[in-house]
Amino acid sequence: MAKDKVCLAYSGGLDTSCILKWLIEEGYDMLAKKARSSTCKSPPKSANKLFTEDFQAAKAKALKIGAVACYIEDIRREFIEELCFPAVQCNAVYENIYLLGTSLARPVIARAQIKVAQKEGCIAVSHGCTGKGNDQVRFELAFYALQPSIKVIAPWRLPEFYERFAGRNDLLDYAAKTGIPVSSTKSKPWSMDENLAHCSYEAGILEDPDVTAPADMWKLTVDPLNAPDKPEDFTIVFEKGLPKKLITAEGKAITDSVELFLEANAIARRNGVGRVDIVENRFIGLKSRGCYETPGLTCLRSAHIDIEGLVLDREVRALRDQFVTFNYAKILYNGLYFSPEREFLEESIVASQKTVNGQVRCRVYKGNFSILGRSSETEKLYDASESSMDEIGAFSPKDTTGFISVQAIRLKKYGEAKEAKGERL
Amino acid sequence: MAKDKVCLAYSGGLDTSCILKWLIEEGYDMLAKKARSSTCKSPPKSANKLFTEDFQAAKAKALKIGAVACYIEDIRREFIEELCFPAVQCNAVYENIYLLGTSLARPVIARAQIKVAQKEGCIAVSHGCTGKGNDQVRFELAFYALQPSIKVIAPWRLPEFYERFAGRNDLLDYAAKTGIPVSSTKSKPWSMDENLAHCSYEAGILEDPDVTAPADMWKLTVDPLNAPDKPEDFTIVFEKGLPKKLITAEGKAITDSVELFLEANAIARRNGVGRVDIVENRFIGLKSRGCYETPGLTCLRSAHIDIEGLVLDREVRALRDQFVTFNYAKILYNGLYFSPEREFLEESIVASQKTVNGQVRCRVYKGNFSILGRSSETEKLYDASESSMDEIGAFSPKDTTGFISVQAIRLKKYGEAKEAKGERL
Amino acid sequence: MAKDKVCLAYSGGLDTSCILKWLIEEGYDMLAKKARSSTCKSPPKSANKLFTEDFQAAKAKALKIGAVACYIEDIRREFIEELCFPAVQCNAVYENIYLLGTSLARPVIARAQIKVAQKEGCIAVSHGCTGKGNDQVRFELAFYALQPSIKVIAPWRLPEFYERFAGRNDLLDYAAKTGIPVSSTKSKPWSMDENLAHCSYEAGILEDPDVTAPADMWKLTVDPLNAPDKPEDFTIVFEKGLPKKLITAEGKAITDSVELFLEANAIARRNGVGRVDIVENRFIGLKSRGCYETPGLTCLRSAHIDIEGLVLDREVRALRDQFVTFNYAKILYNGLYFSPEREFLEESIVASQKTVNGQVRCRVYKGNFSILGRSSETEKLYDASESSMDEIGAFSPKDTTGFISVQAIRLKKYGEAKEAKGERL
Amino acid sequence: MAKDKVCLAYSGGLDTSCILKWLIEEGYDMLAKKARSSTCKSPPKSANKLFTEDFQAAKAKALKIGAVACYIEDIRREFIEELCFPAVQCNAVYENIYLLGTSLARPVIARAQIKVAQKEGCIAVSHGCTGKGNDQVRFELAFYALQPSIKVIAPWRLPEFYERFAGRNDLLDYAAKTGIPVSSTKSKPWSMDENLAHCSYEAGILEDPDVTAPADMWKLTVDPLNAPDKPEDFTIVFEKGLPKKLITAEGKAITDSVELFLEANAIARRNGVGRVDIVENRFIGLKSRGCYETPGLTCLRSAHIDIEGLVLDREVRALRDQFVTFNYAKILYNGLYFSPEREFLEESIVASQKTVNGQVRCRVYKGNFSILGRSSETEKLYDASESSMDEIGAFSPKDTTGFISVQAIRLKKYGEAKEAKGERL
Repeated sequence: MAKDKVCLAYSGGLDTSCILKWLIEEGYDMLAKKARSSTCKSPPKSANKLFTEDFQAAKAKALKIGAVACYIEDIRREFIEELCFPAVQCNAVYENIYLLGTSLARPVIARAQIKVAQKEGCIAVSHGCTGKGNDQVRFELAFYALQPSIKVIAPWRLPEFYERFAGRNDLLDYAAKTGIPVSSTKSKPWSMDENLAHCSYEAGILEDPDVTAPADMWKLTVDPLNAPDKPEDFTIVFEKGLPKKLITAEGKAITDSVELFLEANAIARRNGVGRVDIVENRFIGLKSRGCYETPGLTCLRSAHIDIEGLVLDREVRALRDQFVTFNYAKILYNGLYFSPEREFLEESIVASQKTVNGQVRCRVYKGNFSILGRSSETEKLYDASESSMDEIGAFSPKDTTGFISVQAIRLKKYGEAKEAKGERL
Repeated sequence: MAKDKVCLAYSGGLDTSCILKWLIEEGYDMLAKKARSSTCKSPPKSANKLFTEDFQAAKAKALKIGAVACYIEDIRREFIEELCFPAVQCNAVYENIYLLGTSLARPVIARAQIKVAQKEGCIAVSHGCTGKGNDQVRFELAFYALQPSIKVIAPWRLPEFYERFAGRNDLLDYAAKTGIPVSSTKSKPWSMDENLAHCSYEAGILEDPDVTAPADMWKLTVDPLNAPDKPEDFTIVFEKGLPKKLITAEGKAITDSVELFLEANAIARRNGVGRVDIVENRFIGLKSRGCYETPGLTCLRSAHIDIEGLVLDREVRALRDQFVTFNYAKILYNGLYFSPEREFLEESIVASQKTVNGQVRCRVYKGNFSILGRSSETEKLYDASESSMDEIGAFSPKDTTGFISVQAIRLKKYGEAKEAKGERL
Repeated sequence: MAKDKVCLAYSGGLDTSCILKWLIEEGYDMLAKKARSSTCKSPPKSANKLFTEDFQAAKAKALKIGAVACYIEDIRREFIEELCFPAVQCNAVYENIYLLGTSLARPVIARAQIKVAQKEGCIAVSHGCTGKGNDQVRFELAFYALQPSIKVIAPWRLPEFYERFAGRNDLLDYAAKTGIPVSSTKSKPWSMDENLAHCSYEAGILEDPDVTAPADMWKLTVDPLNAPDKPEDFTIVFEKGLPKKLITAEGKAITDSVELFLEANAIARRNGVGRVDIVENRFIGLKSRGCYETPGLTCLRSAHIDIEGLVLDREVRALRDQFVTFNYAKILYNGLYFSPEREFLEESIVASQKTVNGQVRCRVYKGNFSILGRSSETEKLYDASESSMDEIGAFSPKDTTGFISVQAIRLKKYGEAKEAKGERL
Repeated sequence: MAKDKVCLAYSGGLDTSCILKWLIEEGYDMLAKKARSSTCKSPPKSANKLFTEDFQAAKAKALKIGAVACYIEDIRREFIEELCFPAVQCNAVYENIYLLGTSLARPVIARAQIKVAQKEGCIAVSHGCTGKGNDQVRFELAFYALQPSIKVIAPWRLPEFYERFAGRNDLLDYAAKTGIPVSSTKSKPWSMDENLAHCSYEAGILEDPDVTAPADMWKLTVDPLNAPDKPEDFTIVFEKGLPKKLITAEGKAITDSVELFLEANAIARRNGVGRVDIVENRFIGLKSRGCYETPGLTCLRSAHIDIEGLVLDREVRALRDQFVTFNYAKILYNGLYFSPEREFLEESIVASQKTVNGQVRCRVYKGNFSILGRSSETEKLYDASESSMDEIGAFSPKDTTGFISVQAIRLKKYGEAKEAKGERL
């Protein structure tokens, strides 16, 4: 009789290699799926560390362990265009600080996995997320929305698995015993997750929120202290709130979404832009500490906020800020991308961005992002002569007297009431 | 017969000196009032420019012009404790960027002016704000709430004044003719407003939003490019969300509000922290471009956001972020400090900050502010072992399965509906 | 030389007739425009009062007074489809009670007036609104958005007019003197404004908010005390949140928007549904008391709220309620229909209503509106067997244990903190 | 060895009687706790059905089944003062319709149960809620916040219980076998939950949302069709937003909270006020249909909304409506009463209600609640002469021209941009 097929989100690391083997031993036909949402391109110029992912090696390893197949899916374009760019359009941020780098990748990874599972007729999907984090929730809610009938095998929540593999040594023993190749790299005292937009660090020594992240932890960006002494300038052009062109200091114009994103990353990485350190509130109600690098996205988001000042109506902006930005970020963080509310909000984002057309001249320097200037050829809401303090123009100063008088009606009543009650302002 | 008395907000500059004279000529007994909300202390160490305000010289000048009295009011403590600190407590920010430096000063300046007016029995108050800006609104709404019966004389909105003084040269001529002393300082091609928390630059060459602010414009902070090559670390201690102690790199502990604020300023100024450049939406509906320096407040606010991660409940934070932060900033920006809604929100701020107790270790470096770590002796919402990925603890991983299953009920329905309608996710 | 043309919003009543004459005397060529947004159809069956507007008589009167032309514009369809129906879709309500009946009509009336003004080459538009109300703001903001160069003549804010016509008697004298026909109807001790959706009553004796509205004031609806002793049932069918069909008790199906709206009105009017009495906050900051009748719209809105329970996702609903409903109502109330923010919100409304398909069986009885039942053929979010308390179904009760445990993580921390601080819950 | 003690929320009905027995058989020492949050006072005059709860009979039954003790706790005052009145103060409503009658009772019932459990040294608490509803969540989240170490036994989520008792007949068999007395009352084809504020009906035949609730289902209120033909008037006096006095048609003044609430109930019940029928969204993500009667609370809330119109500042009201009302209701509905966010919001409610002082004259008639008038002796925000259309007063109509002109600045820009892009408004 044919075995049931299960599709595992496979990273190539120790955890998912052991899970792969264990599920095979549990009697499944296993498919490994590895999403290529990260990149080996554009390492920080001045960094001597190297970052490359070897997808073919991972595939070979999965097959060696016993997977019946291994899919490598390149989801970089959909990750950037469907997730990162809407996040830029609404200036998404969680708890004032976190740009959602990990959260943004989960929906596309989950969708790629479900596609493989559907193509191969899998009865279940599996992942290597731990039982206390956000990612298990993000993956599984996506799985269930994408295919409500799917089953999910989460070994780290199964007693038969987590009781057997109580620590890293148990995994190493199992790997040795079952012939799983283990890289010689010494384990870092923190865990890490990286994609094209972002690298996160948590757990281990970082669990003490008062321990400063060690300088050699940061992987994507140069330490601001070691970044170039000369600022680097560039220009980002937006259409309907989407980054459409990046012009480098040398004048090179990049218009392809993926290339543009990679270039923004490269610029930010070599100038140390995009590091944060935060204690955040997970969906399940625990607080956790994370250190994040989000180089290019930090620049794109900041530039987008700037251009909105020039071209977006005040009230549309205020409504979008209070309503869409906050909730889009919360929805993404909590893993509710595939949901009616995200669809709803995304239509509101698009509706808000019609006039967000223009370009921003940006500067990065030793960890700083700053604005040099901005302009728009098509949008005319800003009117230098009208807002000028030096010109009277068509605008009558007397009108403002009436404006203030009417605004004061309510406040005078309030002042009188305070007075009558003997209260002081 | 006694003349009517008017109290003028007097800066000592050309504009308000001419207004003072003109109002005297109009037949009023004039009182000049100058609020000391700015400071000459702690100029940036590495800056060779000098910044001092000579209050006694301003007073002498007002009396020389003909004021019957000149009041110098020191409102620095109330400015910091009543305005800046609540802004820190709710992380106030307008349109994502502006920390409200100018807006925060207006209520206390207006209140000081009304106090003088009441003491002296003035029938009106006057100011030198232009007819297109926010400050006229902020001052006058405060005046009317504080004393609903007060009259306001706004010369820049009176045709008899603004038609006579159409440009700077008209003012200079008038000063020459009427013996008003004019400093030899050449006028800068922008206007400036400074207080203890902030310096703003706008108008003139800045009215083109694509013109980069010149390096010699910035007055409070050192250019990040010229800031020290070594980071500077310090610690801020919060109680109920209020900055209660600042510990310098040398270990000096400062607890007095004013001293603490000045020290935060000094640290940030010499390290180039707190510059922004923004096109913002004024209350009256015009867009305008401003460049702002808000050194110490930038650090205090960022540190406060950080400590909230450790000690503030997720849902209280979310409600406060979406509701209080946004609206408090809008209210302050629009000059509605003395209003029922500000009183209402301020009680909510206090209610939200009960557990915001702890300390943040901060670093500034060439324009950057970053976090080194944070801790709290009294608050225990963060629990390293419970959030640890390496420990099972009291928490059962199986519970999360149920949590996700229940969260998925609604999403499965949604996925099924999509499927039934032939739509893709 | 040709005279300047002005287009006046003309009601045919005493006020606008005098304004018409006065503007002619001021030297303008006047065009009267009367919008047909009200109706004489469907008077309440059991009411013995009669309500008809004679548009031709109004036109004749305008021409007799000296208007060079009088336009009667039928804007009922656009009023219902462009204004009333979006209000239904988002359940719009101002300050919990007011269904915006007057506010909804203003944009279409203003647009019709601007069209006439543009066609006739008018230099200005005029209206008879008083200087303290909302309607002047609503009309003029619409005028300025629709044609930024237009001038507005608001006689009740011109001293030369309002000082001359200080009371009703001055208007009557002027009418007598200038030959303006005056109806013999004795003036009511309140003012009234009526359109197809709504009739409002304010001013006069109603200015004392403790005076009960007299029974003979209400014009559109039968007194609930005199309404039929038998309930009347009907069904409303919604598609994408829009009322698409009304099925009467007799089984007649009405699908045309205008006819459907008139039928809803007729049913509600004869059963006394839709009366409210409110003290509300005007845009200019004054409080005012209004009595409103909004018969059909009350039923359509209540039915719409009900169907959303069955077919709209919880989170979409919550976001829409908190964000769109509140703000759409505020925007309409304040006269900001022609604005970027209304356009933005309206796209969000549409995005929220995709699944709002189904029908509601309604009952009206002596002022009450109630729900008999609801169903949807296309939407399946409600699942009787799944929500059934009597069936276990696919849903595992054990999952809920995990759901609650995870929800409790944060609350246990909170309980422990309270305990540690010696506080009681 | 002593047995472990468990405290059960005991209603006296079939379900909790069987649970009581079953837990005794499982080896626990059982304590029954019955909260007196309902009332037998004031049955609807014109109703021939009788509603009384016999607490002593329930206690005798519990002891007969084998409970070691049975506590009857009267929590009516805390229910009204701590839960119902804050709900009135913030006009709490869930999904536009549901006044939270059941949700409001849960926190006080849970607290009373924990008190008994703590006094008796119980290791666990238990309840008879089903596994799909809201109430299990509300009870258990309250338990865990009140005593984080408590255990919860939820039999309807334990397979050993729910698989044994698959239907009502299994319970009846068990009762017969174990000697549990069963009332002869035939089971209704719906389930019911009642407290002092409210009665809810759901499940059974009501699970089809298109089935009209049968006339004989409603228990608290008279059918509007059978209610008196004469309206009944009464007055409610508020202080700081709290109902402080109710004056009946006969002039009787009631000031005690419980008595006042009971009187409001009695008036509303005999006049058929407070019935609703809704499909709502449960916390766990299912939709469910409920029919609710909330007589007195409906009147108190509506009167409170009315008085706020007269005495509450516009902006405080708007902030409270958008922020507090929505979230307080959601928090209560989801069972998060004992939470930091509820504490936070409740302080905001109090802060918003300082000026909510005054009285409302109300009328009920055949299911309708309406307002006759309102007044306040202490609050003066409403000013008849100032808002009067007939008086110019201190207010200059010309000011409004300036107000509108300034409001129009932004809209003219928008109109011009539309025109330039060839778009129509």
